[in-house]
Amino acid sequence: MQTAAATLQIRPTPLTREAFAPFGDVIEMQPGGGYAINGGTSWRWDDVAALDLTREGGQPLLSLFRTEPCQLPLTIAFLERHPLSSQAFVPLSQRPFLVVVAPPGEQIKPSDIRAFLTAPGQGVNYAAGVWHHPLLALHSSSDFAVLGRRGPDENCDLHHFDHPITLVQ
Amino acid sequence: MQTAAATLQIRPTPLTREAFAPFGDVIEMQPGGGYAINGGTSWRWDDVAALDLTREGGQPLLSLFRTEPCQLPLTIAFLERHPLSSQAFVPLSQRPFLVVVAPPGEQIKPSDIRAFLTAPGQGVNYAAGVWHHPLLALHSSSDFAVLGRRGPDENCDLHHFDHPITLVQ
Repeated sequence: MQTAAATLQIRPTPLTREAFAPFGDVIEMQPGGGYAINGGTSWRWDDVAALDLTREGGQPLLSLFRTEPCQLPLTIAFLERHPLSSQAFVPLSQRPFLVVVAPPGEQIKPSDIRAFLTAPGQGVNYAAGVWHHPLLALHSSSDFAVLGRRGPDENCDLHHFDHPITLVQ
Repeated sequence: MQTAAATLQIRPTPLTREAFAPFGDVIEMQPGGGYAINGGTSWRWDDVAALDLTREGGQPLLSLFRTEPCQLPLTIAFLERHPLSSQAFVPLSQRPFLVVVAPPGEQIKPSDIRAFLTAPGQGVNYAAGVWHHPLLALHSSSDFAVLGRRGPDENCDLHHFDHPITLVQ
């Protein structure tokens, strides 16, 4: 006799640099950081993401994404990873979005999956190999600048889950 | 006896791909372009800027800028160029900004200077060697993602103008 597997429920927590550190970078204008340029008319924050885009003949690729909003609860059917490169998502609107990640590795332990809710304006940069869900916009159609890798090699793996995982509010 | 040089006045025109082609790329979601991804939940435009960031040991560098607005008329005292790399400015707000450019070359002919007013959401990517003014936000403080080059070499030249050049409305 089989017993039904319990649905794993994942609840997002606010995105912070500390909590996201195992997965990559939070892209934001960090208070207390940066420096003045252009005669003081601009403030500049450098290295807001550890870009890793040029391994094995890779070149940086700038894309724009327009994403329809998702509705919670949402079934997380799979995560993807880019083993050869980082991938950065910079929001072009001031709307929050959802981030679902799991640590690098050949397998994904469902209890290691984490979900984060961005603050308006925060972006993320997934480190190479970090498992992540495709964009999950909230509330309304949202635009993003995306910085990834163009290269000669296949650079996207998918991991489909055997048991249901649900992202809840 | 010296005569005073007439002030050269430059008036911005709307930013279009055609008009900006000699200077680089207009970064925008071009209608009719792009393709569906992620099961149709996102629309993706690739290669929205011809990134040129890895010459001579260069690596892509992602920065964030917060810029105070300028007031017109504005004296354009100098332009700068990055001979070894492109530099892309993606607005993180939906506000227009001003772009002042001149073609690549050791000298700048004042009559070759062009000024453009972006539409909300449009960004620009200056091709390597294109002379350009630092960010000129309008109306209120504006944020940008900036994609440039980190490298071992000096990569910024300035050209100061002998005669006044004024950017007008």
